[in-house]
Amino acid sequence: MENFEFHNPTKLLFGKGEIEKIANEIVRYGNKILIVTGGGSVKKIGILDQAIVHLEASGCTWFHLEGIEPNPRLTTIQKGIEICKREGIEIVLAIGGGSVIDASKAICAGAMYDGDVWDFYTRKSTIRSALPLGTVLTLAATGSEMNGNSVVTNWETQEKLAVGSNKLLPKFSILDPTYTYSVPKDHTVYGIVDIMSHVFEQYFSHTSHTPLQDRFSEAILKTVIENATKVIDNPKNYDARANILLSSTFALNGLINIGKTTDWATHAIEHAVSAVYDIPHGGGLAILFPHWMAYVMDNGIEKFVTFAVNVWNVETEGKTDKEIALEGITKTREFFNRIGAPSQLKNYNIGSERIEEMAEKAVRGGTIGSYKRLTKEDVIKILQESL
Amino acid sequence: MENFEFHNPTKLLFGKGEIEKIANEIVRYGNKILIVTGGGSVKKIGILDQAIVHLEASGCTWFHLEGIEPNPRLTTIQKGIEICKREGIEIVLAIGGGSVIDASKAICAGAMYDGDVWDFYTRKSTIRSALPLGTVLTLAATGSEMNGNSVVTNWETQEKLAVGSNKLLPKFSILDPTYTYSVPKDHTVYGIVDIMSHVFEQYFSHTSHTPLQDRFSEAILKTVIENATKVIDNPKNYDARANILLSSTFALNGLINIGKTTDWATHAIEHAVSAVYDIPHGGGLAILFPHWMAYVMDNGIEKFVTFAVNVWNVETEGKTDKEIALEGITKTREFFNRIGAPSQLKNYNIGSERIEEMAEKAVRGGTIGSYKRLTKEDVIKILQESL
Repeated sequence: MENFEFHNPTKLLFGKGEIEKIANEIVRYGNKILIVTGGGSVKKIGILDQAIVHLEASGCTWFHLEGIEPNPRLTTIQKGIEICKREGIEIVLAIGGGSVIDASKAICAGAMYDGDVWDFYTRKSTIRSALPLGTVLTLAATGSEMNGNSVVTNWETQEKLAVGSNKLLPKFSILDPTYTYSVPKDHTVYGIVDIMSHVFEQYFSHTSHTPLQDRFSEAILKTVIENATKVIDNPKNYDARANILLSSTFALNGLINIGKTTDWATHAIEHAVSAVYDIPHGGGLAILFPHWMAYVMDNGIEKFVTFAVNVWNVETEGKTDKEIALEGITKTREFFNRIGAPSQLKNYNIGSERIEEMAEKAVRGGTIGSYKRLTKEDVIKILQESL
Repeated sequence: MENFEFHNPTKLLFGKGEIEKIANEIVRYGNKILIVTGGGSVKKIGILDQAIVHLEASGCTWFHLEGIEPNPRLTTIQKGIEICKREGIEIVLAIGGGSVIDASKAICAGAMYDGDVWDFYTRKSTIRSALPLGTVLTLAATGSEMNGNSVVTNWETQEKLAVGSNKLLPKFSILDPTYTYSVPKDHTVYGIVDIMSHVFEQYFSHTSHTPLQDRFSEAILKTVIENATKVIDNPKNYDARANILLSSTFALNGLINIGKTTDWATHAIEHAVSAVYDIPHGGGLAILFPHWMAYVMDNGIEKFVTFAVNVWNVETEGKTDKEIALEGITKTREFFNRIGAPSQLKNYNIGSERIEEMAEKAVRGGTIGSYKRLTKEDVIKILQESL
């Protein structure tokens, strides 16, 4: 195990009806709020109204930025920053999924910065302070509700970049499984793929002697796998939605990667793909991950054997390590297919035309990944396999 | 799953040499420190000196309270409170195991209170504020380094009582596995039993649909079981010590009980036993837990079957649920015996003379536990089985 620091002060309020506590949490930080939302579903299902009723009853004033895109755009974020600066906003409240929360984090950082918020994503500047952020989550996927990560797309430069800072950790996050009842099937599926992909990025590592972290990871994967078809078949299954929601939060809150070197090559490749084609993140990951696994497994077959056995219950008798590992990868791909995720880039009408450009984008900061360090040529091969 | 709040802002600094960061962490809160230690081992192995060198280099002044007992006593704690009030202490630094940390928490709370700190333990008063606390852990056992619990013994009244408050959560905890190298075999064993017991108290629950929490619990148990003999056979096995240390922290930091009703009857019984006989907490738990399991299992055999299968790999073919459950319990007892923990109260020269008195103490606040609510008569039976 490697040395590590773990510090996650985000307060979770989990369960049906927890929205009632929202004003209590908000007023610890201020009463002038920017509410940030996405495409309108939080209005339709009434969450926005519920929040506003509680906030107004506590004497809060609020402004509203709506229309955050699924891959949140810099230009929309800049509008939010402008409101914060102009109105003297004291706390930002994100109501939505990962995109809304990621955009809100950018707004929180940008509101306390004189330059262009994009500087944080290009590493031109470092986040030194940010407005406090609260979140009400409506989609189990990114884990953004309990981490300091933010991913933003700049369409001018066709770049999708991430930044991480403990200054961006939400002060609180309200997780009500009933808010995910109305998530459509495709987004439920993308969320499931996203959660599992986050675990993969941290599970496949050469750091040895990390049994607790690895078993925590397997716990998340198995919980998601067991509950996936339940939420797809019955979107209002409270306990299944709750288990998926909880898994999504713990898949990327800094718990399962403590003391480990992680990978994140597949995310880098997917970000390059969706920066060029604007495809759903979870869809891209479902296509790419099995191919990444097959491409890198020879760099450490043991972990893929453990994965196959502990997560997919692959029988080992009479099989070589490679056969066991491949069976685990096949089962991963089959699972993604079974729940309705895509398996080839051509499902999104993506051909080989821009592979070179995507690979270039993926490795713009140098080689990616750690299980096997991937060069541009490696990325091209993985993308070709994924066509 | 039940609704829950989870909020654990303790910062962990984990790994060899992390003590170097101590002054950085301390000075966020002040530079007038009360250092609290136990019986002298932190002096012998040099941790106290290391800490002092770093603190003095950063301009801190410090006072020292030593001699905290294994079951920390109210009278010693009161001395610490007096120093804090007299000297205007700004932060307490606990260097030691769970007892030292528990005592330090009491000091932190007592320093900000005009009455007797024991009021918090008897529920006469509630903790409203406390001095900040930092810890340097030297023993994997109680989890006190990342929770708000404190257990203190009042020898005048022969009571061992616990209090829990988020005000008592350490601001930071330094966890260096090498500091646990010199823990003697018996205390290593008691620590292992303590960790596993904490998991048992939270794992055995009637709350349904908690697969993630339950698998996290099993992850901790399996990690501890696999690493136990490694640390006993080779006390300087870094990775094994690290895995046990990490398991101890996550066994009682609020993670594995989220959304669950927990039990804690066995801890209540053990506290009653060790308040009367001053035996090691881990020793008492090793004796009591298998008997508690056997006594309550008919109240929900399924969980004990899952436990037997997932934790102890018990084969199920051709066996009744009860046989499987009993095999899991037997394996638990055998494991405790194998690592050198006691299995009967008579190992501590405890006979039946004061059973009634201990049972009375255990249920002083009413029935205990939730898997099966235990009355005084139930406790007497469990204690008789444990003789």
